[in-house]
Amino acid sequence: MASSGLQTKKRDNHNGHFVQPTNPNVATMQEDVLYHFHLSTSTHDLPAMFGDVKFVCVGGSPTRMEAFTKYMAKELGLDHPDAEYPNICVGTDRYVMFKVGPVLSVSHGIGIPSTSVMLHELIKLLYHARCSDVTVIRIGTSGGIGLEPGSVVVTRQAVDASFKPVFEQMVLGKRVVHRTHLDERLAQELMQCGADLREFPTVLGNTMCTSDFYEGQGRLDGALCSYSEKDKQEYLEAAHAAGIRNIEMESSVLAAMCGACGLQVAVVCVTLLNRLEGDQVNSPHEVLVEYQERPQRLVGHFIKKRLAAAGNPRDL
Amino acid sequence: MASSGLQTKKRDNHNGHFVQPTNPNVATMQEDVLYHFHLSTSTHDLPAMFGDVKFVCVGGSPTRMEAFTKYMAKELGLDHPDAEYPNICVGTDRYVMFKVGPVLSVSHGIGIPSTSVMLHELIKLLYHARCSDVTVIRIGTSGGIGLEPGSVVVTRQAVDASFKPVFEQMVLGKRVVHRTHLDERLAQELMQCGADLREFPTVLGNTMCTSDFYEGQGRLDGALCSYSEKDKQEYLEAAHAAGIRNIEMESSVLAAMCGACGLQVAVVCVTLLNRLEGDQVNSPHEVLVEYQERPQRLVGHFIKKRLAAAGNPRDL
Repeated sequence: MASSGLQTKKRDNHNGHFVQPTNPNVATMQEDVLYHFHLSTSTHDLPAMFGDVKFVCVGGSPTRMEAFTKYMAKELGLDHPDAEYPNICVGTDRYVMFKVGPVLSVSHGIGIPSTSVMLHELIKLLYHARCSDVTVIRIGTSGGIGLEPGSVVVTRQAVDASFKPVFEQMVLGKRVVHRTHLDERLAQELMQCGADLREFPTVLGNTMCTSDFYEGQGRLDGALCSYSEKDKQEYLEAAHAAGIRNIEMESSVLAAMCGACGLQVAVVCVTLLNRLEGDQVNSPHEVLVEYQERPQRLVGHFIKKRLAAAGNPRDL
Repeated sequence: MASSGLQTKKRDNHNGHFVQPTNPNVATMQEDVLYHFHLSTSTHDLPAMFGDVKFVCVGGSPTRMEAFTKYMAKELGLDHPDAEYPNICVGTDRYVMFKVGPVLSVSHGIGIPSTSVMLHELIKLLYHARCSDVTVIRIGTSGGIGLEPGSVVVTRQAVDASFKPVFEQMVLGKRVVHRTHLDERLAQELMQCGADLREFPTVLGNTMCTSDFYEGQGRLDGALCSYSEKDKQEYLEAAHAAGIRNIEMESSVLAAMCGACGLQVAVVCVTLLNRLEGDQVNSPHEVLVEYQERPQRLVGHFIKKRLAAAGNPRDL
C-alpha cells in the first residue's frame, strides 16, 4: 500500500474501479518523482489535488488542452469572470496539465513514446491520488480515409500499420506485443452524444496508429518517400477495407496502457483531410481551428450527461 | 527543380553539400505546407529567412532551445540589450524555432515519432531555403550507464534496444530497416571541444535510442513493469558491455534521416543519472538545470571554433 510523504490517509479498498498500476513496485516506493510532470509524492498532496478526478482528457497540443479546460469550466457552470486555470505542470515544459472540477486535461505531444511517458506518470498520479472510476478520452486530430474532412471518428479498435489491434513494444531488448483494448460501451455512449448534438458527422471506425506522419502514413510529400503514388493508394484502400476510417499517432498505446490499469478509455478524433484525396493539410486556419473544437464539444456533452446522471457535478 | 511561390531565385547547383530530400516529389510541388511549423513556401520567403543557416541545434524542450538561442547570441557577439528572439513557429504549439545568425534552434519534443515529423519538415525547409553545408546537432538529456551524472556523451553510434545500429520503421505496413549514420569526424571535433573546455567529463560512446522512458529503458518505477530488478541489471550491464554509455529517445531517427539527406549530424547529451544506480531523476532542480547547460556550452564552443576557422561569423 502506498503510504509515503504527504499521503498518510488510508486507502480503504482496491477493486476494479480504482486506478491500479500493474507494477507492484509503485506501492512500496518511499517517494515517487513524476519527473516529466515536475510533481512528486513528497512535495505535492496528490490526493488533495487530484482525488476528485473522474475524467481525464488528453490531446497532443498544449494550447488545445488549455482551451478545453476553459470550455469545460463554462459548460459545467464552474467559470466566473476572474477564473484562472493555472498549468499544474508549470515547473516543466514537457507537458501541460489543467483541472476544472472533476475534469483533468493533459497534453501528450506527438507520437507513442511521448504519450507513453505521459501515461506512465498519469496512471501513477491517479493511483497516488486514490482516484476511482476514471474515464480517459483522447480528443485529437487525424487524417481521414474516405470521410468528409471535419468528420469525427470514435475509435472502435486501435490498430497498427499492419491493421492488427496490437501495440508492440521493446522491453529489455525483446519485442513484446500487447492487445489494444478500448471500451465498447463507452464508444457507443460517445456515438450517442454525436447523434444528440447533430453538429457534424460522427462515425464509429477503426483507427490506425502510426509512428510517423509522412512515410509511416503513406504520404508522398515528406523529405523521404520510397514508394509510388499507386503503392500509397493501394495501402490506403486496403486500410479502408479493413474498417480503418482515420490515422493518427497515439491511440494504440493509450488503449494498451489504460486498459491494463483499470481505466475506461476512448479515442475521439476529428479528421482534418481525406487522405484518399491528398496529403497536405492546407485548409484555411480558421476551418482547421473549428474542426479541432468538434471532439471537445462531443466530449464536453458526454461529460455533462455523465455528471447529470450521477447528480450535481459540483458535488462530485 | 523547386521554383514555386516566393522562391523564384535559381538554384545554382546541387552537389553533396546542399540539403537534398531523397523524395523527388518535393522538387515539383507547387506549394509545400510545412504544417507542424505553420510555415509554407507560398506564404514565407524561406530562402530569405533561412538561406544563411549553417548549424541546426535540436532538443526536446522548447524553453531549452530558446535559452540556447540567447546563449549563442551572446557567444557570437550578436546580442544587444533590446534583442528579441521571436519564435518563428509562433502559429503552432507543436514545435518552437529560433534563429540567431547562422544558428537555427528547433525543439523536437519527446521520442522518435515527434522527432521524425520535425525532421521531415526541417529537411524540406532547408532544401526550399537552398541551404548548404549544414551541420545538425542534437543537444539533449539522457540516462547514463556507468558514468558520473553530469557527464556529457558524444555519440559514436546510435543503436536500438537490441544494441544494433539501426532505425526500424513501418512503411506501407512493412518493416523497413535503415542503418544509422553519424559523422565520425564531427564526433571527434566535438570531443576535442570537450577537451578544450575542461569543464565536465566528456566521453565518446554508443547511445541507445528507445521508444519509451520506463519499460523501454528497463526502469522499475513505471506504471507497468514486467521484469525483475535482476533482469534489468543484466540488461543494462549487457548494454554497457556493447559500448553503450547513455540512453535517450531520439538519436536513431536523427542519424538515419539526416544522414540520408546530406546533412552532417551529431548527438551530444548530458547524463542526468547513472542508471546502474537507480531509475528516478531526483537530483535537485538547480543541479539538473546546470547539467542541461553542458551540451549547450560544448556545442556553443564548437560553433564558435568552426566560424572562426571560416572567417568572421557576421559575414556568414
